[in-house]
Amino acid sequence: MTAATSVTAEPIRVALLGCGTVGTQIARLLTEQADDLAARVGARIDLVGIAVRRPNKHRDVPAELLTTDAAALVTRADVDVVVEVIGGIEPTRGWLLDALNAGKSVVTANKALLAEHAGELFEAADRTGADLYFEAAVAGAIPLLRPLRESLAGDRITRVMGIVNGTTNFILSAMDETGAGYSETLDEASRLGYAEADPTADVDGFDAASKAAILASLSFHTRVTAGDVYREGISAVTSADFAAARALDRTIKLLAICERVQTDDGETVAVRVHPAMIPRSHPLAGVSGAFNAVFVEAEAAGQLMFYGQGAGGAPTASAVLGDLVAVARNRTVGGRGPRESAYADLPVRPIAQASTRYHISLDVADRAGVLSAVAAEFAQHEVSIAAVRQEGRAHDASLVIVTHSAPDAALRSTVDKVAGLPFVHEVVSVMRVEGEDS
Amino acid sequence: MTAATSVTAEPIRVALLGCGTVGTQIARLLTEQADDLAARVGARIDLVGIAVRRPNKHRDVPAELLTTDAAALVTRADVDVVVEVIGGIEPTRGWLLDALNAGKSVVTANKALLAEHAGELFEAADRTGADLYFEAAVAGAIPLLRPLRESLAGDRITRVMGIVNGTTNFILSAMDETGAGYSETLDEASRLGYAEADPTADVDGFDAASKAAILASLSFHTRVTAGDVYREGISAVTSADFAAARALDRTIKLLAICERVQTDDGETVAVRVHPAMIPRSHPLAGVSGAFNAVFVEAEAAGQLMFYGQGAGGAPTASAVLGDLVAVARNRTVGGRGPRESAYADLPVRPIAQASTRYHISLDVADRAGVLSAVAAEFAQHEVSIAAVRQEGRAHDASLVIVTHSAPDAALRSTVDKVAGLPFVHEVVSVMRVEGEDS
Repeated sequence: MTAATSVTAEPIRVALLGCGTVGTQIARLLTEQADDLAARVGARIDLVGIAVRRPNKHRDVPAELLTTDAAALVTRADVDVVVEVIGGIEPTRGWLLDALNAGKSVVTANKALLAEHAGELFEAADRTGADLYFEAAVAGAIPLLRPLRESLAGDRITRVMGIVNGTTNFILSAMDETGAGYSETLDEASRLGYAEADPTADVDGFDAASKAAILASLSFHTRVTAGDVYREGISAVTSADFAAARALDRTIKLLAICERVQTDDGETVAVRVHPAMIPRSHPLAGVSGAFNAVFVEAEAAGQLMFYGQGAGGAPTASAVLGDLVAVARNRTVGGRGPRESAYADLPVRPIAQASTRYHISLDVADRAGVLSAVAAEFAQHEVSIAAVRQEGRAHDASLVIVTHSAPDAALRSTVDKVAGLPFVHEVVSVMRVEGEDS
Repeated sequence: MTAATSVTAEPIRVALLGCGTVGTQIARLLTEQADDLAARVGARIDLVGIAVRRPNKHRDVPAELLTTDAAALVTRADVDVVVEVIGGIEPTRGWLLDALNAGKSVVTANKALLAEHAGELFEAADRTGADLYFEAAVAGAIPLLRPLRESLAGDRITRVMGIVNGTTNFILSAMDETGAGYSETLDEASRLGYAEADPTADVDGFDAASKAAILASLSFHTRVTAGDVYREGISAVTSADFAAARALDRTIKLLAICERVQTDDGETVAVRVHPAMIPRSHPLAGVSGAFNAVFVEAEAAGQLMFYGQGAGGAPTASAVLGDLVAVARNRTVGGRGPRESAYADLPVRPIAQASTRYHISLDVADRAGVLSAVAAEFAQHEVSIAAVRQEGRAHDASLVIVTHSAPDAALRSTVDKVAGLPFVHEVVSVMRVEGEDS
C-alpha cells in the first residue's frame, strides 16, 4: 500500500454524539479502516471525543474519549467535525447549531431534526462556511440523498416513491404472508426486535413522513417540512385489506410519495405517506422485511431505482462514514459540499387536492340495482370508476371498485355516502392504489 | 422563483465535443433548464462552442457555436469546462489531455478511454487542479460512480455485479423469450436499432469490459484497465443453453463482475465479463431490454442495488449534466471533486485462478456406468459436483451437472476430458452460474 506517502495533511478531528447501535459501529470502523480512510481523504480522521449519557455503559470505546458534556464537546477547539447519531429534536438541535455556528462541519443521521429544522441548520452552516451532510437520515445505507442532490442536479425530478421505513415494511410483509391481523403482527415484530417498545413513530408514519419531507426538499428545491406531509400510518390496515389485495394480485406497502403536480395555478409539490395497494409485479412489491427501496423519476434520466438496507448499525454507519469522508476531504483539499437548494420555492399542496386511485371493497345485499345505485354516488362526486367486480355469496355480495385517479376529498365524500346506503352492509376496505397507470 | 438573486458568479463556459444523440440532448437541456441550472450552481452555464465533424448536419443547435476544430476549442481561453461525448480513444485522448493540461475541467461519457487511460488523464488533472468526472461512462443515467466514489468512501466494497450493456441484454432477453438462436436475434436487434451496424464492441463484451474496469478501479482503489478484464461475449450462447437454463428455472445474462478475492498471497482483485446462468428469482433476472442494473456489496452497507436506463440520449445527458453541475459548482464556490484513488494497488488475478460455479449439460449414451465415469473425471480435476440430473431419452440420455465453486482452469480441463469420453455424444452447454450461494 502506497497510502502513507500521500497522507500529509493535518488530521481531521471528529466528535461523536451518541454511541448506541450506530455510534458503536462508527467508532469501530473509524479504527479498523483508519489507514484506508486516511488514504482516501489525504489526512487521518481522528476520533477525539464521544458524548454519551452514561459513560460506564460503553466498554467498547476508549474510556478517555467519553464525556457527558455534549454542549462543551461540539464547540471544543480541537474538533473539526461533529457526527450526530443521538436523534430527537431537542437538545440535539441546539448542539448542532452551536457546532455549525462555531464553524464545525456536521454529519447527522437525524431525520426528525432535518425534516423540521433543515433551513435553520443550513443557514448556520452558510454563515460559517461549514458543511452539513445527512445521507444516513433517509434509507440507511442506500446512497440516495447524494444522487438526488448531486447526480441528478442537472435533471428535473418529477416523482419519488419508496418504502423508507423498515418496521412497517416488516409488519406489512408479515401480514401479507401469514394473513394475520395488525395487532398480533405488531406484537410479534416487537418480540423479534423489529419494532420499538413505543412503535408510534414508525407505525403512525411519522418516521416515513420526515424522510418524505427530506426527499421532497432535495428533489424539488423547495423547503418541505414534516408538517407539510400528509400522513396515514398502518394501524388501520386489516387482514380484510390484504385479502382484498390478494384477490387482485396486489399487496399493500407503506409508501412515501413526493410529486410535482401541475395545477391551474402553476406547479406545486404534493408529499404523502400512506398505505397503498401495488401490483405484485411491481418491483416495490418484492421489497420485504427491513429493506428499503426508492423509485425516482426524472425527465431526462427516466426511472431509477435504489435498493438496500434501510437501517441497522453497520449500514447506517456506512452512510455516515461516506459523508464524513466527503466533509474531511472538503476540509483537506478545500471546497464545500452542496448547500441548501430551495430556490424553486414551490407551493406544497394539501392532500385534499391530491389525486390518487382507490380500491373500495363493499359488502352489499345481493339484489338488482345495487351496482347502479353505488355507481350513481360515484358519478355524483365525479369519481370515475375504472373497474368493478361483483360476487354473489348466499344473501349478500361483495362489490369491489377500482377508481380512476380522483381527488382525495371527493373519494372521502363518496365513501361516506355509499356507507350510508341501505343495502350496503359494510365498507370492508378502502385503500389507495399506486404503481399502475392511471 | 428567487433564483436570480443568488446567481452572481461569473458564468461557467462549456465546450461540447460531439453533437450526436447525447450531445443534442445536452445542448437542449442546457438551454431549457438554464435558469434551474444557474440557481443550483450559483452561476450560469453557457455553451460557447460545439465541435462536430460536419457542421451542416446540425440544424438543432446555434450555427455560430459549431466548429470542426476540436483541438483549438478545448484550449480556447474562453472555455472553463470540456464535455466530451464523441467516444473512441484517438484523437479524443489527446484533446482531453490538452484540455486538462490547460486547466479545463473535463466531463466525459467515454468508457473506452477511461478504461485504458484513466491514470494518464487523472495525472493531467492533478497537475492543473482540474476536475475529471465520468458518471455517464457506466450505466447511463444510473447514479453509480458517484455512490461508489463518494457515498461508499467510508466502506469496504467487496463485490460489484451487474448488467451494464443494453444491446447484449436486449438480445439475451429476446432469446429467452422467443427461444430463437443468437444470429437471428442479433439480426432482429440490428433491424430494430438496438444493435450497431458493427456490433462487435457490444456482443463480444468489450463495452462491458471497459465498464467493469472502471467499476473495479473505483471500488477497489486500484488501477484496473480493460486489458485486465477477462472477457467472453454472448456470440457462443445458444438456444440449447437457454433451454438448459429454463429447465433449472434460470435465465442467462451477460454479467460484469468485480471481486475482492483473498488468496494465500494476500488480497487480489478479479474482474470478468461473461454470460452466466442466474436464478429467475434473482433481481437481475427481471432486468430486461435496454435497462441496466448493478449490485454492490460492501462490508458495512451490505447489499445495494441500482437500476435504470443504461443508454440513450436523454438518460446519458442527465448523467453528464449532473457532473457538469458538480464541476461548475467546484469552479464557482471553490473545491475539487474526487481525484483518482489507486492507493490500494491490489494485484489483478488472472481468470484461470478465478473460481465460479458451472452448469454443464451433456448428451450421453443411456447405459450403466456413465455417471460414475463422468463423475470420476470431475473428481480427478478436483471439481466438486453440487447436483446431477440424468434423464433417459430413447437411446441416449441428458446429463446435467452443476458444480460447486471451481477454478476456471480445472473446469476447462475437466470438460475437455469429458468431451473425449467414448459414451459422451456431445457437450451441449457449459455455462457459469452466478447469483446463488456457492
